Amino acid sequence: MGKIKKAFTIVLRLLALAATVVAVVIMVDTHDSAKVLNLTFTAKYSNTPAFKYFVIAEAIAGVYTVIVIFLSSKSIFGHSVIIMDMVTTVLLASSISAALAIAQVGKKGNSHAGWLPVCGQVPHFCDQVTISLVAGFAAAVIYFLLLLYSLHAVLSPIFTVNH
Amino acid sequence: MGKIKKAFTIVLRLLALAATVVAVVIMVDTHDSAKVLNLTFTAKYSNTPAFKYFVIAEAIAGVYTVIVIFLSSKSIFGHSVIIMDMVTTVLLASSISAALAIAQVGKKGNSHAGWLPVCGQVPHFCDQVTISLVAGFAAAVIYFLLLLYSLHAVLSPIFTVNH
Repeated sequence: MGKIKKAFTIVLRLLALAATVVAVVIMVDTHDSAKVLNLTFTAKYSNTPAFKYFVIAEAIAGVYTVIVIFLSSKSIFGHSVIIMDMVTTVLLASSISAALAIAQVGKKGNSHAGWLPVCGQVPHFCDQVTISLVAGFAAAVIYFLLLLYSLHAVLSPIFTVNH
Repeated sequence: MGKIKKAFTIVLRLLALAATVVAVVIMVDTHDSAKVLNLTFTAKYSNTPAFKYFVIAEAIAGVYTVIVIFLSSKSIFGHSVIIMDMVTTVLLASSISAALAIAQVGKKGNSHAGWLPVCGQVPHFCDQVTISLVAGFAAAVIYFLLLLYSLHAVLSPIFTVNH
């Protein structure tokens, strides 16, 4: 792989790492409380399984990204990086989708199921979750691009041989 | 690609097609109603955005699978099939995750957000949704395997040349 291609990949990975770190830190840090009938309710990510899954998935993707950045210079992985990038992309897409689905109910509610929106009560929590989800979405998109780029790099020599 | 490899890929695609068809048909067909205080509530997939997204994503994956099966014999796609398989895998993983997140709230509720479980009121709806989600999960897993297999097939000649 050329030096420019390698640098481009590293930049994309650093961006993905930044996005996953922001997603995890903001989601874990955020909490808000609402007072209803003299009872205080606290909203935090760990009360919702989908948000817990989101945090775990983003953390795994972040750690994986650090490992790949450090070891990529040694090229000990070879093409198996593409397989691991694929797994990471699917994991990120899955976690952002689950978290978004729940966030949508939190914002709009679901009148048919009798689930009321909660963002009116805990607006700070909802704002923080939104930022975290945007970062998680960015991480997923960056990994998708990385994967497309890696696939292109792997497939292009084959095309060259054929033509 | 050898004949056996090709046949194996076609079998996997037919299985994925069957899974997406089952997921869409059962999800679209299912409805249930509950009577609360003389008012009748009807539960159907279209009341929940995540389930609508699930149906659309499964339908897209199903149609794509049919097209690929019909055209794969002509090999006009070349390696771009891998890119499209990747997009389909991400789409399926995303849709099943969003639908599962909502189904989990439907089954267990979320006491912190004040969302009550609804499966007690509409058990038939929940059972049908469960079957549809299992089929959707199967489709996602099959596409993941297809992608791994395609990647292996593409990467292995490179390995062979190197060694």
